Amino acid sequence: MGSPTIAVLRQKIHGLSANDYATALRDELPEIDIAVADTPAAERELVASAPIVTGYDLDAELIETAENLDLFAGVYAGVDHLPLDTFEANDVAVTNASGVHGPNIAEYVIGAILSHVRGFPRARRQQEQRTWQSYPARELQGSTVTVVGLGAIGSAVVDRLDPFGVETLGVRYTPEKGGPTDEVFGFDELHTALARTDYLVLACPLTETTRGLIDSEALLTLPTEAFLVNIARGGVVDTDDLVSALQANRIAGAALDVTDPEPLPEDHPLWGFNTVSITPHNAGHTPRYYERTAEILADNIDRYRNGETDFENRVV
Amino acid sequence: MGSPTIAVLRQKIHGLSANDYATALRDELPEIDIAVADTPAAERELVASAPIVTGYDLDAELIETAENLDLFAGVYAGVDHLPLDTFEANDVAVTNASGVHGPNIAEYVIGAILSHVRGFPRARRQQEQRTWQSYPARELQGSTVTVVGLGAIGSAVVDRLDPFGVETLGVRYTPEKGGPTDEVFGFDELHTALARTDYLVLACPLTETTRGLIDSEALLTLPTEAFLVNIARGGVVDTDDLVSALQANRIAGAALDVTDPEPLPEDHPLWGFNTVSITPHNAGHTPRYYERTAEILADNIDRYRNGETDFENRVV
Repeated sequence: MGSPTIAVLRQKIHGLSANDYATALRDELPEIDIAVADTPAAERELVASAPIVTGYDLDAELIETAENLDLFAGVYAGVDHLPLDTFEANDVAVTNASGVHGPNIAEYVIGAILSHVRGFPRARRQQEQRTWQSYPARELQGSTVTVVGLGAIGSAVVDRLDPFGVETLGVRYTPEKGGPTDEVFGFDELHTALARTDYLVLACPLTETTRGLIDSEALLTLPTEAFLVNIARGGVVDTDDLVSALQANRIAGAALDVTDPEPLPEDHPLWGFNTVSITPHNAGHTPRYYERTAEILADNIDRYRNGETDFENRVV
Repeated sequence: MGSPTIAVLRQKIHGLSANDYATALRDELPEIDIAVADTPAAERELVASAPIVTGYDLDAELIETAENLDLFAGVYAGVDHLPLDTFEANDVAVTNASGVHGPNIAEYVIGAILSHVRGFPRARRQQEQRTWQSYPARELQGSTVTVVGLGAIGSAVVDRLDPFGVETLGVRYTPEKGGPTDEVFGFDELHTALARTDYLVLACPLTETTRGLIDSEALLTLPTEAFLVNIARGGVVDTDDLVSALQANRIAGAALDVTDPEPLPEDHPLWGFNTVSITPHNAGHTPRYYERTAEILADNIDRYRNGETDFENRVV
């Protein structure tokens, strides 16, 4: 197998450019020809000839024209948006970027929890009014944190909670596998975990099981002091039920990096709660995004050149 | 030695009352007579007879009238404000509340760092404008955090940083004692540590050595990306030098729980920086303040009843 060419498709992830990604790839793979498809025409041309293409999506139509394509390296952790059947039918392997988000999203989650613990949103409002006034804070130590989803992100959250002296509960599809939390529950035992929860972290994929998982029933089971952190997908929470619970003060508040709908419309009630902090689906942003994505692809290029097909993060 | 009476002086710490403290003490010491001095007259009367008094201050004049007083249990970590000479001359032992602040202030520090890392103040401004717009974030992993002062609070900060994958540098009076950080420097090597610092945490007492420690020279040595967290005392930072550095974008920003002057006047420039977060000297607030203070005093009452005088946290 000769030295492959990698075609980098047009993409802008969190303000980083395709050229940034190409630079990271050239750092990892100095001996490989890496071409950036900077126009639709260049994209068509490169996809038609390159054995490896990396980007966030590839049209089914283009896949059909990709005569030499062996591997599509997706730069998102999710692959729901990809024409997976077409890739499979054309014998193209697909990998995702699962795992690149562990450290940064975990930092987001711990930061969001501690901002609530220490009342930073209130401090910010007082600062805008130039008012020096002490106010009570909470304490994380001794609390119970429940993490739904114990993949790369959920586990990175649990790792970072270790020195804070909290009890951790995990909820996952396969509780028999155990996990990094003090206790592990299946989804059928969700309410048992919720009833003991001070901080609820959603870090699971959006599936048939998890869609609308946090609904009025779940919000009723959660203690009044509970605080919700959603870095999964907006649809894991029933938005109307969450708004009702917040309006009635049934939970203490929420930090939401994802919402349903998304982007959140200007007139949506979620914007207005003092007890809610909203970020624009950028918990996954890190200046090292492409550095980590490039590491995964470089590892897979090694396997590819050795004729192996058991790629890291392979999904098709 | 008979069963002592504890007089609880009038006090309100972070919105908690003297009665809350008395309740915590009664939980720890159910067999002991605990009286709350709820008026100045009650204070004079109780201090004149009680062997143990606890509060945040005691007038030198009152100490002279305290015929049976053996122990004054201060409820602050600091003792600068106390008439220590008068206590000593009257043979009254003094203890402080050092150590009660470890978990809560450490939670504040990690929360302040991660709020900056993830750009939460910017998210808050966008939320107020109901604007959904992605923005770049930073990453803590791989950074260098320098902690000045490796007492109970500094050590609690370092402990909690452990799973975040950062390098830690410590600055202390007695570097030969080592410490929990990856490297330990003396104050004479401060600039060597500052030059490598991404996050600078001030957790030292205010002394002749530390007054104005972070001045224009220190702010010049710090990298442009450096972020300052001050939970020590306002005077450890030269405020005018900090304002100049922020105005010229010489450091990335600061989280200040303490300022000089304090309270910060309404027209002070520190309020206005987007890159500065100010809290009203309440990093030490915790709903468990009195619980922890009561634990220290209960332990010392045990020693007192055994005729011991090597009290925990004894300063006089």
